Amino acid sequence: MSRHRSRPEDASLLHGGRFLELCETGGWEFVRRRKVKGTVAIVAVTDDKKLILVEQYRPPMGKAVIELPAGLAGDIPLQADEPLVTAARRELKEETGYEAKNWTSLCEGPSSAGLTTETVTFFYATGLAKMGEGGGTEGEEIRVHYIPLQDVLKWCRDQERAGKMIDFKIYAGLYLARAQSGLAEARLWY
Amino acid sequence: MSRHRSRPEDASLLHGGRFLELCETGGWEFVRRRKVKGTVAIVAVTDDKKLILVEQYRPPMGKAVIELPAGLAGDIPLQADEPLVTAARRELKEETGYEAKNWTSLCEGPSSAGLTTETVTFFYATGLAKMGEGGGTEGEEIRVHYIPLQDVLKWCRDQERAGKMIDFKIYAGLYLARAQSGLAEARLWY
Repeated sequence: MSRHRSRPEDASLLHGGRFLELCETGGWEFVRRRKVKGTVAIVAVTDDKKLILVEQYRPPMGKAVIELPAGLAGDIPLQADEPLVTAARRELKEETGYEAKNWTSLCEGPSSAGLTTETVTFFYATGLAKMGEGGGTEGEEIRVHYIPLQDVLKWCRDQERAGKMIDFKIYAGLYLARAQSGLAEARLWY
Repeated sequence: MSRHRSRPEDASLLHGGRFLELCETGGWEFVRRRKVKGTVAIVAVTDDKKLILVEQYRPPMGKAVIELPAGLAGDIPLQADEPLVTAARRELKEETGYEAKNWTSLCEGPSSAGLTTETVTFFYATGLAKMGEGGGTEGEEIRVHYIPLQDVLKWCRDQERAGKMIDFKIYAGLYLARAQSGLAEARLWY
């Protein structure tokens, strides 16, 4: 079997950490998360057409990063089999305080296809109502931003100039949600 | 120092592989690439408004993945200090056979801000001319696709139904390049 047909299920463990495992298959190294079913990211748009973004310090970056509300599915004891949309609902509520009436799955794709088994499933959430404080769970310090759809790119550029990093999943999510929302509304998205 | 202000430069090495290092800082685990300056991805659009995409088998996914042309910067001996755009030119040529007259940097962002130090810098490449065969370097088996801009999303959905994975950097790149290209052309992008 060539290294380029090596399969993740045949991988050997190089090192098992508490949260991450470094693996190798046919000479190809990659990392996978332990006890996690998937990762979710949420394109949450309020009735007055604002995108909800979160900001938090990320140790691997050494900086504050602006991101879509997001999180892990299946990482809570006794909830390992939760559907991805259940994790998305929980993460949106924990991080931003919002609940959403309408949930649409937009896509699932790899975070970095050569580096990790992690995939992200994007959801589009509308019909939002604020039901809590947000800010994350214990130990998380999350700041919430509300940005008019047509201003997102300019606002992100300004945040970069202020020393923050921008997660490009924001742009992928906007591309997909814009296509989902139909042409009639599309002009609002830039 | 709280774990949430732990810095990547203070990290300790849990395991050093040939290509990847598993690290830990203040209880937070992450992975970093060895001897790599950055990762580049290229939104290459031909004069007749087709997006160039590449397809290759990815061991961590166990599947063929459709992606923007992309690669690592600074991973070649004696070229560790190459500018990112130089790496982008090389990767586009190796993978697709194309050279581009015009190069614009679109953004730099984290692949997965909690998991890895990897960031991706997106470039927009136009004024394309085919100067070689493409297909990648020795050991790479890369298939090249040319998709009209307005058909990309539908085509990607069809590829997913055929069992392939779609890298969401395609959608992020299109969002950014569309904004870059100006409103006059924008209607072509969907």
